[in-house]
Amino acid sequence: MLECISEHACFGGVQGFYRHNSAVIGLPMRFSVYQPPQAKEHPVPVLFYLAGLTCSEETFMIKAGAQRFAARHGIMLVAPDTSPRDTGIAGATDSWDFGEGAGFYVDATQAPWHRHFKMHSYVTQELRRLILDAFPARADRIGVSGHSMGGHGALVLALRNPDIYRSVSAFAPVVAPAQCPWGQKAFTSYLGSDQADWQQYDATELMKKRTLPFPHGILIDQGLDDRFLQEQLLPDEFEAACAVAQQPLTLRRHAGYDHSYYFIATFIEDHLAFHQRILSA
Amino acid sequence: MLECISEHACFGGVQGFYRHNSAVIGLPMRFSVYQPPQAKEHPVPVLFYLAGLTCSEETFMIKAGAQRFAARHGIMLVAPDTSPRDTGIAGATDSWDFGEGAGFYVDATQAPWHRHFKMHSYVTQELRRLILDAFPARADRIGVSGHSMGGHGALVLALRNPDIYRSVSAFAPVVAPAQCPWGQKAFTSYLGSDQADWQQYDATELMKKRTLPFPHGILIDQGLDDRFLQEQLLPDEFEAACAVAQQPLTLRRHAGYDHSYYFIATFIEDHLAFHQRILSA
Repeated sequence: MLECISEHACFGGVQGFYRHNSAVIGLPMRFSVYQPPQAKEHPVPVLFYLAGLTCSEETFMIKAGAQRFAARHGIMLVAPDTSPRDTGIAGATDSWDFGEGAGFYVDATQAPWHRHFKMHSYVTQELRRLILDAFPARADRIGVSGHSMGGHGALVLALRNPDIYRSVSAFAPVVAPAQCPWGQKAFTSYLGSDQADWQQYDATELMKKRTLPFPHGILIDQGLDDRFLQEQLLPDEFEAACAVAQQPLTLRRHAGYDHSYYFIATFIEDHLAFHQRILSA
Repeated sequence: MLECISEHACFGGVQGFYRHNSAVIGLPMRFSVYQPPQAKEHPVPVLFYLAGLTCSEETFMIKAGAQRFAARHGIMLVAPDTSPRDTGIAGATDSWDFGEGAGFYVDATQAPWHRHFKMHSYVTQELRRLILDAFPARADRIGVSGHSMGGHGALVLALRNPDIYRSVSAFAPVVAPAQCPWGQKAFTSYLGSDQADWQQYDATELMKKRTLPFPHGILIDQGLDDRFLQEQLLPDEFEAACAVAQQPLTLRRHAGYDHSYYFIATFIEDHLAFHQRILSA
């Protein structure tokens, strides 16, 4: 059952916040949906947005200013929370970069995390189906984007499920989690210490094994004053993997921009236009 | 001395958060400034934005999406905090609609509030001068806007100081505080029980006494699904006072919109364009 927390008129459409009992997660989950004005008339394309560490289903809708362009293009926006909440698992709220608020969009295999931390299946299957059932969204016009940990999530979800996601972009994504501290910490606990099991959730590793998975290209924006750039984000790794896979990639490096939503807000217009072009084709 | 808390690249300009020791308030105060890219070249017009109850100097910069249009038009944005903080005054943090976070942009005359709650003088004098000293802002091109309690503040500051403020607009303003519970509660404590003393901070009363203070007009947006509309905001009162004063007023009533920043974000483009027209004339 879908519970409405709040709805607000916004750019002629509806910004809503919702809660439901997730069978996949085994707990209540919250998410947000922006329905553009066009959704009153007919089903519209959908862009899923995956947020980063410490964020929630509210962050993108409050800070990015995306609704203006979702309304312009007639695209629905969907943002899940970044992990299960109130899991009761020991240590789940001790770190800002692991556990609650840091689900890394994987299906955990290791106890005790595997009880609830199933964000990959949650987003790709359960939440997607719920959106298609409850909102006027087109099943055949779905894109995905995200920021930082959520940029990792967007790339991995798209590369593993190209039948679901037609378009993919990211802001300052963690593109090689197996090679960076955030990813190593999370994957060790969620997936275990065998690094072979990590590759299925590493965008750079996934890309190396494919040939042209996204013929319309991938758009990534990266600020060059991002304090996580050198240690955690590693966009050069993904760029090299795309070259191997012959995957067209537009990786824009922006002098002066940092990791914040002031960076995302600056370039969100381009991402909505990018997804619009592909989803309307 | 001006302390920089953080600065972020944003739409080619700089979004900054700052702190200083306020002589008027007698305590440290925080404020935010968005410098558009044009400010690198020459001094630019300034729009002060006053936020509403429970908000801070961060709210507008995070939620409204105004920087996109400030960058387009070359307007600097300045947002003060909504009151002194950490005042140590008994009861100052007990209510969400009075005390800290609810300064109502008045100079309190009553003990103990008069020790620190001097937001009218702070915004119109000290903060304005600090901005003109420390940032490339034009003293002769200043506008003011705000939301709810801050919409009240914007109208009152402009009506009392038309020599300072050339342009004024508001979102869902409290236009007749002497007639509504929020204003009556605040004014009784800040200004005392003599209602004659309230008129100097009541936009509707101030307007009645003037003739055409703002020849370029005033812009107000109001959502009709705003839950505070009937009891607290009373836009009809201000509309009637403007008619008496022959003040051109564009009061737009928007079906379906509420009191949130999703409403503000929807119409902020029009407000920046309105101020730009007047400030560039």
